[in-house]
Amino acid sequence: MMSESRLVTVAVDAVGGDNAPSQILEGVRLAVAEDASLRVLLTGPAEVVEPFAATLPANVEAIPSTEVIGMEEHPANAVRAKKDSSIVVGCQLVRDGRAQAFFSAGSTGAAMAAATLVMGRIRGVQRPAIATVVPTSGPPCVMLDVGANADCRPEHLLQFAVMGAAYASVVLGVIGPRVALLNIGEEPTKGSQLAQEAYALMAARTPNFIGNIEGRDVLTGAADVIVTDGFTGNVALKLLEGTSRVLLSQVKDAITGTPLAKTAAAVLKPALSRLSERLDPDTYGGAPLLGVNGICIIGHGSSGARAVSNAIRVAAQAGRGGLTQQIATSIAEN
Amino acid sequence: MMSESRLVTVAVDAVGGDNAPSQILEGVRLAVAEDASLRVLLTGPAEVVEPFAATLPANVEAIPSTEVIGMEEHPANAVRAKKDSSIVVGCQLVRDGRAQAFFSAGSTGAAMAAATLVMGRIRGVQRPAIATVVPTSGPPCVMLDVGANADCRPEHLLQFAVMGAAYASVVLGVIGPRVALLNIGEEPTKGSQLAQEAYALMAARTPNFIGNIEGRDVLTGAADVIVTDGFTGNVALKLLEGTSRVLLSQVKDAITGTPLAKTAAAVLKPALSRLSERLDPDTYGGAPLLGVNGICIIGHGSSGARAVSNAIRVAAQAGRGGLTQQIATSIAEN
Repeated sequence: MMSESRLVTVAVDAVGGDNAPSQILEGVRLAVAEDASLRVLLTGPAEVVEPFAATLPANVEAIPSTEVIGMEEHPANAVRAKKDSSIVVGCQLVRDGRAQAFFSAGSTGAAMAAATLVMGRIRGVQRPAIATVVPTSGPPCVMLDVGANADCRPEHLLQFAVMGAAYASVVLGVIGPRVALLNIGEEPTKGSQLAQEAYALMAARTPNFIGNIEGRDVLTGAADVIVTDGFTGNVALKLLEGTSRVLLSQVKDAITGTPLAKTAAAVLKPALSRLSERLDPDTYGGAPLLGVNGICIIGHGSSGARAVSNAIRVAAQAGRGGLTQQIATSIAEN
Repeated sequence: MMSESRLVTVAVDAVGGDNAPSQILEGVRLAVAEDASLRVLLTGPAEVVEPFAATLPANVEAIPSTEVIGMEEHPANAVRAKKDSSIVVGCQLVRDGRAQAFFSAGSTGAAMAAATLVMGRIRGVQRPAIATVVPTSGPPCVMLDVGANADCRPEHLLQFAVMGAAYASVVLGVIGPRVALLNIGEEPTKGSQLAQEAYALMAARTPNFIGNIEGRDVLTGAADVIVTDGFTGNVALKLLEGTSRVLLSQVKDAITGTPLAKTAAAVLKPALSRLSERLDPDTYGGAPLLGVNGICIIGHGSSGARAVSNAIRVAAQAGRGGLTQQIATSIAEN
């Protein structure tokens, strides 16, 4: 692709997540192998990042840090206390312009807190939000907020629409993304007070607003951006993940119930594996925290090498496409 | 079963739903054929209910009514204006003690409004709630509210817990149902203000409260009753339905992609059909409106004969088990 020729630098937390550092390092290796114009600044303990960077000196630079924030630590407190942690250092690299994006598969709370405190918010953004890319029957769509803000006001949802549309445009390449509000009925007067007020604001001010979308249409590709509060969005996201897992496992059980079925199932295995992969959130590579003044992509704690390399690819694409500037401009105009 | 020997009467709206009256009547026929101690009072236009009742004179009695409430009408207004509609008459039969339960696959809003206005609320119940039975990897569980109350206060959720537990006990036969709060984290301090306050109330006052449950665990059978507000619950329910539909259709596409796969798929068809049926909400027969002073079961507009007969069976079971009295007692004690 044309865009891959533009140099971009992504800071990566080598020690975040359940499979760190091995799967993170393997993911970095895959990512730089696929994209000759990608540079990675690898943050983490010297004994982890330096030997690895030495194997890929042209593409990966080690940025040793002395501290690590664990999954169980209080996010904001840990970020304030551990200024030389891999997460804080990674965010500083973005703030200082040495990298365009930061990726971590470590504590979501710590990554959010560090990005917000170190990078700061984009001017005018009231609440940064976590977005996720949802696979649908059609093209993938962006859903947000999926967990940063459990309680929201209508004007927050209005800004989520702006930020989600920018992401769909820059990262998914959607022209004029169709934006919908997740609600419990199609009519403008349906839903909670929050949903009704958000509807009115979005109808007046969100470009390409297509109205309410119900839970049953999230996966049909009816919208490019689905806006909701962080409570509903988090429940919805985890329900999607849980449902996919349970259903595919039940399909597996159903089709391996008898010896004859088992033989038949063997024939179908490749097709089912491709389907599982398509539905796997890892395919879309982590969740961006939108609204902070720099790109921050947060991976599942369980991220394997492929998920890490996909997330780095997404981070690079967001950096090359100028996502942060795009959000800043859209927020200023909206 | 023992309980089937006890006589029970269910009022059925013959003209509610997309497939009325043919599938409703067929569902009634199936239901009375399976349960010799079931009587049905069939409400609807004389020309629909009388000829049908004449074919089953020992089990079905026609209760002619002159009006019908359409799906598009404003629920409360229609209920007030059409006192001789099949829905209002059905609710009156329960109020007057001629039937123990009412079933309609017509307008959910109208059935809710009619049940609330005609039957009234159980003493002490602040907000009736719509429950649904969710198929899981383990035993089915009851989730509520799934749409009656888009905005809730913590004390409403506390009452939903009481009502859901009564339903799980009477209809699903669960002894000491485990009750969970749908939330976006496991710890008591997670979630929206509503969720945090509801957690505190439930921890103090809900028997067998097992704490928070996340979206990914809804289908794992971790709880017998899942409590949430009607906005989140409705999004979750419709997402479950939509996800199941999309996934099973994608599985179908995946396994019929090549001639060889198609042959293999034919072998697996019975197993996949059984799975589809297990996941089909129709299997559990409609959604009860809990908290009104009588049993009211609301079917999908798309209900076919099997869904109708299942819903009537559930209505009969709730009637025989004394669901309304059980809720009244639990609410008074809680």
